[in-house]
Amino acid sequence: MLLGRFSLSLLFLKLVMTTSFGGCAVRRHCTRLAFGGTGTTTLSSSSSSSRSSSTTSAVMKNCLYRIRDVNNMSTDIANSLCSFVIDGVPIGKVRPAMVRLLCETGPDVFVVTKNNDNNNGNDILTLQDKIDKTCEARTEAVDTVMRRLCDAGVVRGWRDEHYPLAATFYDQPLLTVERAAVPLLGALEYGVHMNGIVVPQQQKDDTQQQPRMWMARRAKDKSKYPGMVDHIVAGGQPAGWSLWENAVKECQEEAGIPPEMAREGLVPIGAVSYATYSPKSDTITRAVLFNYDLYLPPDFVPKPTDGEVEEFFQWTVPELFASLDPNFPDPLKPNCYLPVIDWLMRQGHLSPDTPGYLDVLRELRNGDCQ
Amino acid sequence: MLLGRFSLSLLFLKLVMTTSFGGCAVRRHCTRLAFGGTGTTTLSSSSSSSRSSSTTSAVMKNCLYRIRDVNNMSTDIANSLCSFVIDGVPIGKVRPAMVRLLCETGPDVFVVTKNNDNNNGNDILTLQDKIDKTCEARTEAVDTVMRRLCDAGVVRGWRDEHYPLAATFYDQPLLTVERAAVPLLGALEYGVHMNGIVVPQQQKDDTQQQPRMWMARRAKDKSKYPGMVDHIVAGGQPAGWSLWENAVKECQEEAGIPPEMAREGLVPIGAVSYATYSPKSDTITRAVLFNYDLYLPPDFVPKPTDGEVEEFFQWTVPELFASLDPNFPDPLKPNCYLPVIDWLMRQGHLSPDTPGYLDVLRELRNGDCQ
Repeated sequence: MLLGRFSLSLLFLKLVMTTSFGGCAVRRHCTRLAFGGTGTTTLSSSSSSSRSSSTTSAVMKNCLYRIRDVNNMSTDIANSLCSFVIDGVPIGKVRPAMVRLLCETGPDVFVVTKNNDNNNGNDILTLQDKIDKTCEARTEAVDTVMRRLCDAGVVRGWRDEHYPLAATFYDQPLLTVERAAVPLLGALEYGVHMNGIVVPQQQKDDTQQQPRMWMARRAKDKSKYPGMVDHIVAGGQPAGWSLWENAVKECQEEAGIPPEMAREGLVPIGAVSYATYSPKSDTITRAVLFNYDLYLPPDFVPKPTDGEVEEFFQWTVPELFASLDPNFPDPLKPNCYLPVIDWLMRQGHLSPDTPGYLDVLRELRNGDCQ
Repeated sequence: MLLGRFSLSLLFLKLVMTTSFGGCAVRRHCTRLAFGGTGTTTLSSSSSSSRSSSTTSAVMKNCLYRIRDVNNMSTDIANSLCSFVIDGVPIGKVRPAMVRLLCETGPDVFVVTKNNDNNNGNDILTLQDKIDKTCEARTEAVDTVMRRLCDAGVVRGWRDEHYPLAATFYDQPLLTVERAAVPLLGALEYGVHMNGIVVPQQQKDDTQQQPRMWMARRAKDKSKYPGMVDHIVAGGQPAGWSLWENAVKECQEEAGIPPEMAREGLVPIGAVSYATYSPKSDTITRAVLFNYDLYLPPDFVPKPTDGEVEEFFQWTVPELFASLDPNFPDPLKPNCYLPVIDWLMRQGHLSPDTPGYLDVLRELRNGDCQ
């Protein structure tokens, strides 16, 4: 944290100085942009606002670096995936070696069917016909296999927490699976992420300070990403809760935010999605993060309440920008960058005139979002 | 306009009463959502906020109706399209009959090459090899064909305004084409759309009124969509201007907004994209609309300045919702619904707990966005 703070100013200055503008001398019609072009003044009209064309290509590249760090699937890997299909409904994406392992471990549960044109010609993984076509029967059958794989050390961190698998977020689940086993089947996972925003009160000179974002420092004994910077509140979406109820509950559990304050401050603003390939486990993580802006009173201080967070602190917009740099010494937990970049974009801190803008916009939802 | 206003309240009441909640009795794990489920209270925690789970399925369906009205391409049509490719770079999508017409009208300019695997096995339209590989030479060659097609009545509304064609928004154009001829080649078109927002001042009782959106009524003599409701400011992106410069210019030209006020109030917040098939002309419109929120002072009144707008007026959030209904008598110009729905989503007026939310989110950028 301290390390990060000390090097921030210099890093940010370096970022904003690296500009892509200028040096683009072209003719009137056979050019798209005006920078240096005939008949318009280079950037003169936009220098008066921080929300205009002042983003640099370096910032845009850093955004793409952070998005692609999570959304890292190569075409080769994407093309290799077998669909996990139940009753004709695709609900997962599985690597060929994992397909074989699942079928070998549970030959009475999993079965492979051959090529069809809609799946790049790859095999399809499905359940044996003899399993009853009910959520409960499928859940029980798959659970026996996952427990064997847990004993074999393939599924790690068993949580005794079941996760629903369906074609889309709103469909009734076709089965539920132990949460730690979800990446083996490459099923879509859903979570809620809050950008905790403080808008400082208006100053006496009638100016308003820039907003700040509350960040959390993960506890050092967390099994995943110990000690890293995280959203003030974020969590997986459990079965049996609405997103709204879950968001309010997580605010209280993770940061001591009273439910009334959470309900007053929470604004659902969209979602981001991604697909990650993990070479170590040869599994696919496909996720949709429902994003909320959480407006908090300037005098409120969140409190670590469940032992998962070590401290809370605020970052300014320049500090958020600095944290995007690949060399930043104290980065966010990787998937948190997507809701943060989405916020920077929605607040006008990224300029559509900077090359890469549409890539950032598009790649924030590069995973299946359904 | 008056007709719209009179029927709004009733229509909106009807919309918000049509709720999808309840009646969903299911078991703890084999269900995704909590409505009616065990262990949680139905909607009790979310009824206190307008930004929570209060969106109805009817509203979500109306959003999808409006998006799909513009984004209307069937799989059959999408699969039929031939790529228009220059130097290996795809820059357009053309219907087979139009491919034939272009080649017959300009056999010295256009040529068809045969199937390759990356284009559904469809033909590829490209330029004759003998044409110099410069933007100017390609522009001149294609222009001769488009002028012939204008004489033949195929290209209508010739504007003497050239539009740049490239692989992405930020690439140097490979050629430029008369704007009225762009849909024949199915090239990506770019525009700027402003949501003109007024945030009413804080009241004495410490409450804040909901924001309102400035809308424009198009002049009755406009060739396209005469008399329809439109954004306060919107326009195509011309060659030789930055988006920011164009946005400020359009604010002044279309609504008499002084440049300083526009620069102060404009916030770039993203983009939407769509692909429309027009059966009448057998052409494809592919567009990216760069979206801006334009915050205007409560006491400012926009003025029709260039004869393209008849009047300006404000809509409240309930009025915007009502205008989404397929039966609304005074709807927006079709593509304006996308930036408006994007704004409703970013402001938390659509709940992610309502089925269809992720479809709306995804389909707002259903076109190529590059």
